[in-house]
Amino acid sequence: MIIVMKPNAPEKTIENVISIVEEKGLQTHLSRGEQVTIIGVIGDKTRLEGSNIDLLDGVEKVTHITESYKLANKKFHAQPSIVTVGNARIGSDELVFMAGPCSIESEEQVFTVARALKASGAQILRGGAFKPRTSPYAFQGLEEQGLKLMAEAGKETGMAIVSEVTSLAAVEAAYQHVDMFQIGARNMQNFYLLKEVGKTDKPVLLKRGLAATIDEWLNAAEYIMSEGNHQVVLCERGIRTFETATRNTLDISAVPVVKSKSHLPIIVDPSHATGIKDLVPSMSRASIAAGADGLMIEVHPTPATALSDGAQSLTPQEFDRLCRELLPFANLMGRHF
Amino acid sequence: MIIVMKPNAPEKTIENVISIVEEKGLQTHLSRGEQVTIIGVIGDKTRLEGSNIDLLDGVEKVTHITESYKLANKKFHAQPSIVTVGNARIGSDELVFMAGPCSIESEEQVFTVARALKASGAQILRGGAFKPRTSPYAFQGLEEQGLKLMAEAGKETGMAIVSEVTSLAAVEAAYQHVDMFQIGARNMQNFYLLKEVGKTDKPVLLKRGLAATIDEWLNAAEYIMSEGNHQVVLCERGIRTFETATRNTLDISAVPVVKSKSHLPIIVDPSHATGIKDLVPSMSRASIAAGADGLMIEVHPTPATALSDGAQSLTPQEFDRLCRELLPFANLMGRHF
Amino acid sequence: MIIVMKPNAPEKTIENVISIVEEKGLQTHLSRGEQVTIIGVIGDKTRLEGSNIDLLDGVEKVTHITESYKLANKKFHAQPSIVTVGNARIGSDELVFMAGPCSIESEEQVFTVARALKASGAQILRGGAFKPRTSPYAFQGLEEQGLKLMAEAGKETGMAIVSEVTSLAAVEAAYQHVDMFQIGARNMQNFYLLKEVGKTDKPVLLKRGLAATIDEWLNAAEYIMSEGNHQVVLCERGIRTFETATRNTLDISAVPVVKSKSHLPIIVDPSHATGIKDLVPSMSRASIAAGADGLMIEVHPTPATALSDGAQSLTPQEFDRLCRELLPFANLMGRHF
Amino acid sequence: MIIVMKPNAPEKTIENVISIVEEKGLQTHLSRGEQVTIIGVIGDKTRLEGSNIDLLDGVEKVTHITESYKLANKKFHAQPSIVTVGNARIGSDELVFMAGPCSIESEEQVFTVARALKASGAQILRGGAFKPRTSPYAFQGLEEQGLKLMAEAGKETGMAIVSEVTSLAAVEAAYQHVDMFQIGARNMQNFYLLKEVGKTDKPVLLKRGLAATIDEWLNAAEYIMSEGNHQVVLCERGIRTFETATRNTLDISAVPVVKSKSHLPIIVDPSHATGIKDLVPSMSRASIAAGADGLMIEVHPTPATALSDGAQSLTPQEFDRLCRELLPFANLMGRHF
Repeated sequence: MIIVMKPNAPEKTIENVISIVEEKGLQTHLSRGEQVTIIGVIGDKTRLEGSNIDLLDGVEKVTHITESYKLANKKFHAQPSIVTVGNARIGSDELVFMAGPCSIESEEQVFTVARALKASGAQILRGGAFKPRTSPYAFQGLEEQGLKLMAEAGKETGMAIVSEVTSLAAVEAAYQHVDMFQIGARNMQNFYLLKEVGKTDKPVLLKRGLAATIDEWLNAAEYIMSEGNHQVVLCERGIRTFETATRNTLDISAVPVVKSKSHLPIIVDPSHATGIKDLVPSMSRASIAAGADGLMIEVHPTPATALSDGAQSLTPQEFDRLCRELLPFANLMGRHF
Repeated sequence: MIIVMKPNAPEKTIENVISIVEEKGLQTHLSRGEQVTIIGVIGDKTRLEGSNIDLLDGVEKVTHITESYKLANKKFHAQPSIVTVGNARIGSDELVFMAGPCSIESEEQVFTVARALKASGAQILRGGAFKPRTSPYAFQGLEEQGLKLMAEAGKETGMAIVSEVTSLAAVEAAYQHVDMFQIGARNMQNFYLLKEVGKTDKPVLLKRGLAATIDEWLNAAEYIMSEGNHQVVLCERGIRTFETATRNTLDISAVPVVKSKSHLPIIVDPSHATGIKDLVPSMSRASIAAGADGLMIEVHPTPATALSDGAQSLTPQEFDRLCRELLPFANLMGRHF
Repeated sequence: MIIVMKPNAPEKTIENVISIVEEKGLQTHLSRGEQVTIIGVIGDKTRLEGSNIDLLDGVEKVTHITESYKLANKKFHAQPSIVTVGNARIGSDELVFMAGPCSIESEEQVFTVARALKASGAQILRGGAFKPRTSPYAFQGLEEQGLKLMAEAGKETGMAIVSEVTSLAAVEAAYQHVDMFQIGARNMQNFYLLKEVGKTDKPVLLKRGLAATIDEWLNAAEYIMSEGNHQVVLCERGIRTFETATRNTLDISAVPVVKSKSHLPIIVDPSHATGIKDLVPSMSRASIAAGADGLMIEVHPTPATALSDGAQSLTPQEFDRLCRELLPFANLMGRHF
Repeated sequence: MIIVMKPNAPEKTIENVISIVEEKGLQTHLSRGEQVTIIGVIGDKTRLEGSNIDLLDGVEKVTHITESYKLANKKFHAQPSIVTVGNARIGSDELVFMAGPCSIESEEQVFTVARALKASGAQILRGGAFKPRTSPYAFQGLEEQGLKLMAEAGKETGMAIVSEVTSLAAVEAAYQHVDMFQIGARNMQNFYLLKEVGKTDKPVLLKRGLAATIDEWLNAAEYIMSEGNHQVVLCERGIRTFETATRNTLDISAVPVVKSKSHLPIIVDPSHATGIKDLVPSMSRASIAAGADGLMIEVHPTPATALSDGAQSLTPQEFDRLCRELLPFANLMGRHF
């Protein structure tokens, strides 16, 4: 931590800052410039909570040098983590596909799509049962009934199941049915919910918030991990910008940035990021080429009658074609599926 | 709703769209342009859920003309709503101040600040007990103990109490202590939580999400209202942009925009929006001049030792001075406090 | 400037950085933390150009402590500057109105509006002659003919003239007709153009770029000032965000932020910021209350037939009513007009 | 164009709108809904300039259905365009590399890098001579002397030359030295400059503005094309968002979006987009996989002493390695180099 003093801060304000920091058991290093004096602070900064250094007389600003996340930080865990979900090993040299409909709508829908996805090579079945929708009048999901249908489809096909949870009640209802909890973009800083899934023993797929920096995202992962559950997979799904040609702006550079800062695996969801099915193949190829550990893709047997997000859903046939198109790109990256 | 067909869409694709829409009991109006044909759809669009018109052959895009929120919409409720919290009437010609510390830290802190705020004219005491913090290692709040302290301070001073709830458990714990629930920016699209406070009989302060459009914000209000609780007050608290000189960018134009679209009251939180105490007076004046129904301002007896957000907190003395400075601006706007 | 070394950077990389910095005649201060070592650099940093410290072995990042703008910086020029345009003194206790049509369209239009504006109290006539338009097929302005009409209207009414210049040719054409050059948002980082107006002896109104940080904006002012022309007035006109309810998001907090960092005057353009005439009065009041030195407002005799931006233009009657409504707010801020 | 009337707009306001539109020689189609009435407008909308329909009594809003750019629009030119620069054919099945230093600094620098790039397979030499820099105190480029050095290096190696122009004077100076003009991000809406390069017979590389939508970008291309020069290549170089981990956010989805809307070729500049050399390889792979027609990459013989943007520059050796790594990805996309 670096404390920058105002130009011409009186000597006694500098001494005061130093004495407050040192009283907390931290060390300081003073550096006097021509215009400004800076004070480096060495030691455990959590001891400074409640000493609002930035408000002390003479202080211009405080700059943090080290990240606030520890368990998610690559600096303290250099080896990439692998998270196992069913038979899939996310973060290994396997490219993992999580595919399925935005919303679970019926038994026929979920079984039809699950069988097709399995045949195409997808390892994990995704589907929404508790749906966060912008308008309260839009379809809200089949809730626990949807999870049961998914679990049955997973059992028959041998696929693992991932589904979004939006509350403690949903976590409890989902626990027996799913193999992985999904935290959606809108709940990325629902810290209460992060702690709840952090207390469980199931892997968590943590989507990036619409307006979350990568630093905030890794801090959200830290919330889950600090409760004891280290099985976190990140999912880039587009951020909100001024551009309206796509639903969100897919930040593919988040893939290598996350890999430079964290040991956690990261996948990409091109369906939600773009909102346009015609962009899913190109953004899937780009994500793989950027180093993503997997993809989450919406597939619906009949997109034209989907109860949510049909515009971004592939048919099972289109998904199958996409998988075959993606395989050589995955192979170039040293991955298989 | 308007359906725009692709240039040169074959006649049979146009007929197909019309027949699908009309089968659902809606009417259509066809308009053939030189380049494109458009189809106007008349009637209750919720009947079209599950008919993904935008995916039909020949369709280029679908444009919605009417808003998806109804109860929050000024078109169906022209009179401004007044929400009563304790003795305060938000949305009336009274300018309402919600003031207090970011976090409740101790009995002494909350009583000291409450007495001072009351004397300065604030009607509602704010304070955080369940704190959403970016890092899990930051102070997380006193939880129910904090609420009890606030309730006692409110009782002594005659001030109403508002505090943030972050989960169903927090709603249940807070119910007996607070006069108004606050939904924080990070939970604005925690639809599960919105429904829970919507089932209660207490007013709700709904902060705007960091990256929420005004349309999404009013849809979040609709979630609360559609459960039966119409006592919603909106709070503009800054949006996330590229600018880093302030913590967020305070969108003061949201005040008149909301008033043109909704009958709900709206207040402004200049403390969280800017993150800088020196900007609170100017942004408070601007908010009042823009037509805000109230202000939420952070006040701490000793900002330099606050456990959260000290940099944006006024002292009680500074708050008192601010109130006196704001009064003539409020009067010019036809308001008093 | 602070150089942050990577965790466990070898001793020789630290020594190498220090020796490179010191060879350039700068001083260093070393501060060794538990995780990281930081090197403070003292002296004139322009000497380090061409020594890309951030690329040296062992360096994690370089943080700048002091601003790169000098002439625009309040630290070296504590007194607020006053810029004189005609009879108007921008930055004084006078509130300055620049008003007029988006585009100059005809002699009748400009004289009609100029006479009305003068009567309402506006000091400066604005009008576009060289128009930057998103589409090449939209009206591009009357160019020099428009400037002549403005100059005549200014002469008759005693108002000063401000108009946008978009090229060196436009600067040369406008020089004899206008009292103040305007640099538009799209040209805020057209550094060539900034230098050209910096070589003249006329005041410059520098609009903020659509996506410009306040720091970049003050650096753009520095371009003009470093050529010798210190008569710069800044104009906040909204920044681009995700919100679509307004054309741009008016960043009113930029007013006090600029005043904390620079001695230059700052005005606000609520017409372009919002794009909606109904929002102009509330945003004008808010701007004055935030401390703006003036306002730029679009006024057109018949907005419904304006060749550009009619939707945000007031009629002369509406402008007159607005001025009367704004006067008491200006007076509260210690200003008159 | 669709005109949406306010709910309960009086009949005479509807008739008034229709009569104004039809007087201009356009046709209308009326569609009466339960809540709102909409009026479709058919014909050449440029006839409506100066009739601000959105300001007429009873009108709620006007929605445009067709794009304002014509020459750049794929609807009227279905075949992809190929732009020839020297021996390179951009938009063909050749993957084109534009590589070189951010700034031309010396004869030795430019010849060293040009020879190496040529050997690695780059077809076009890039280099800055007129440099737009945020601070006026940063290195501003060698100007015409730099262009001469580049031209000589191009002649010796057989590479074509591209360099940024920032004013009419620079266009004139550069004309004899370069094979392609570059318009930088900061000048994307410098419409005067766009017209000037549009009057020449040399290809233009048009970078996307920091905050430009794809629609605005294609309108900027239209400015160039409407002057007669159809040889435009677009370059995605990152947009400004709230994320600070990268300099800008590379919007790779812009590649397929542009290809769906326009026939113009598009390349990607991962160096400027990210500002971090370690991200250049992954973002280059992703760009190719997304369908880009080429890449612009910064290469400097000694990045640690570069006068600008060293942090994002590869060495010639790193560039050579990158080219070899990229070739199989290009081949998978049906491209060669």
